[in-house]
Amino acid sequence: MAAPDPSQLADRLLGGDLTAAPAALNLLENRAERTAADRRTLLAALSPAATGRELPGHVVGITGPPGAGKSTLLGALITEWRRRGSTVALLAVDPSSKRSGGSLLGDRARLFLDPEDRGTFVRSMASAGQLGGLAPATRAAAHALAACFDVVVVETVGVGQSETEIAEVADSTAVIVQPASGDALQFLKSGIMEVPDVLVVTKSDLGRVAMNARRDLLAALRSIGDRDTEVVLVSSIAPPKGLPDLIDALERHRDRTDLRARRVAARRSSALAAFAREYGERAIRALGGTRRAAHVLDDAPGDLDVESLVTLLAERAGIEPGGDAAAAHVGDSAA
Amino acid sequence: MAAPDPSQLADRLLGGDLTAAPAALNLLENRAERTAADRRTLLAALSPAATGRELPGHVVGITGPPGAGKSTLLGALITEWRRRGSTVALLAVDPSSKRSGGSLLGDRARLFLDPEDRGTFVRSMASAGQLGGLAPATRAAAHALAACFDVVVVETVGVGQSETEIAEVADSTAVIVQPASGDALQFLKSGIMEVPDVLVVTKSDLGRVAMNARRDLLAALRSIGDRDTEVVLVSSIAPPKGLPDLIDALERHRDRTDLRARRVAARRSSALAAFAREYGERAIRALGGTRRAAHVLDDAPGDLDVESLVTLLAERAGIEPGGDAAAAHVGDSAA
Repeated sequence: MAAPDPSQLADRLLGGDLTAAPAALNLLENRAERTAADRRTLLAALSPAATGRELPGHVVGITGPPGAGKSTLLGALITEWRRRGSTVALLAVDPSSKRSGGSLLGDRARLFLDPEDRGTFVRSMASAGQLGGLAPATRAAAHALAACFDVVVVETVGVGQSETEIAEVADSTAVIVQPASGDALQFLKSGIMEVPDVLVVTKSDLGRVAMNARRDLLAALRSIGDRDTEVVLVSSIAPPKGLPDLIDALERHRDRTDLRARRVAARRSSALAAFAREYGERAIRALGGTRRAAHVLDDAPGDLDVESLVTLLAERAGIEPGGDAAAAHVGDSAA
Repeated sequence: MAAPDPSQLADRLLGGDLTAAPAALNLLENRAERTAADRRTLLAALSPAATGRELPGHVVGITGPPGAGKSTLLGALITEWRRRGSTVALLAVDPSSKRSGGSLLGDRARLFLDPEDRGTFVRSMASAGQLGGLAPATRAAAHALAACFDVVVVETVGVGQSETEIAEVADSTAVIVQPASGDALQFLKSGIMEVPDVLVVTKSDLGRVAMNARRDLLAALRSIGDRDTEVVLVSSIAPPKGLPDLIDALERHRDRTDLRARRVAARRSSALAAFAREYGERAIRALGGTRRAAHVLDDAPGDLDVESLVTLLAERAGIEPGGDAAAAHVGDSAA
């Protein structure tokens, strides 16, 4: 089977052809060097620099500890979005690939969706050894899906770390907490947890316990000066409750956010991280440190995609793959 | 004031001179390029390759979410170690440096120790933007302190991520959980949380709740085939309870562990991570991938320090600072 042409894939995605999603994700998940140029072509073709607009899909990050009822919630949430007429793609970032535990795949199996429904798309992606973290391929996949799906959900597992990374790809981030757990409260108060856009307390069937959790979380948010973050109670056991509230809260967040500014900032932040990961800290030092590297990106056009921004940083640092300039600049000290 | 000679500092530390600790840590925390050679000299002088033995101190990692009573526990724990005649150094890894929140420093202030006691040493270190993670300087500082203190405690804040990283520096790792939180249980069962050497349930004054938490954690450990990890109940409110039990559990872990093998593996793991951080993923690819890079380290002498192992990897990848070979090997593809 011939590899699909990346420009044609981009055209199909941008034209709203949901059937192009599997081939696009196969290409983006592929890590072979010989298809790297195709990946760059696809991503550049989807960038605002090429299309003249931000991608239409609403990218929603959902994160929380295992056992918080995330998978059941996601199934019910996708059903509600479909009921409202939105197409939905789910990218489930699976940290179990790093370890033997198969319980997360078990979780995923509980997510019941109609396999005949062409308006939903579910893909599990490895987190590539970064616990709770997002592999660069996840970010790229979310971009490709946002070209044609109304809603793209990126799901990660974690506490205190994953919501920071999910914010680099999501327009709106929801963090799920269990009503009896004091951890979210403590993480929020300590400043370790980034403040999410929506906080979700599961198991609202627990009644007073869930109500108290909501009250405590709202008080913690107010105490750190946050007046925007909504705290939503949901129950995903049948009959599910609170899911329309959660979707409404996510849409209110999207509507009051300058999405373009948020995405421009997210692309710059992702590019800085990708540059450091690929070329190492000494390449950051070659640019004069993290702040100066960030200034380079601040001066770049806001509609460039992440790969192009990384290339820009590499050029500025004097790193050209295979070029002689690389030695002089990447080497710490000339002999 | 002249900078202290790194070889003399190493001699003083290895000779048990606790007053050398502040100067050693100042050097190791310093990130200036001009003192890099001094740092390498100090660390190499402390390595088993130079001294012919592993460092005598027992490095204990203690991690847990904020609000679990970690700081109060640490104060009581250090007092108990001192009562037993052990000298104790505490390295508190402070993630608040990344954000505005000062609550963690507030936590630290609650740790009451006798400032006249020369047998204790406390230093707060920034986690350098790696949330819950260990900066390379923390690892180096723990090594230096293990040369002269009987016990070196490395404290981090987090859930699900930090215990993985703390295991790279600690001989024995304790994870603190709150009795009412189900997160630790879920993380353990899902395989996201590395199994700690000792699990600590705080607030044992809560009676039945704490007892139930202990029972559930033991059941979860047995269900994943773990028969070694002890679960200890402690209370750090006056009068503190369970602290001798916790210290006994940590010492039992140390006694049944092949500390040298664990430290050799930890040094290799740290070196691989430090190499990737410094030179980037394309340097790992230049070595043929992560597995081949690990094989290079498996063949290296086990008593080399981390810096020497990183240098070995760099040489094997053809990266020599300033050398011409760097261009050919670090560049992905020759032009």
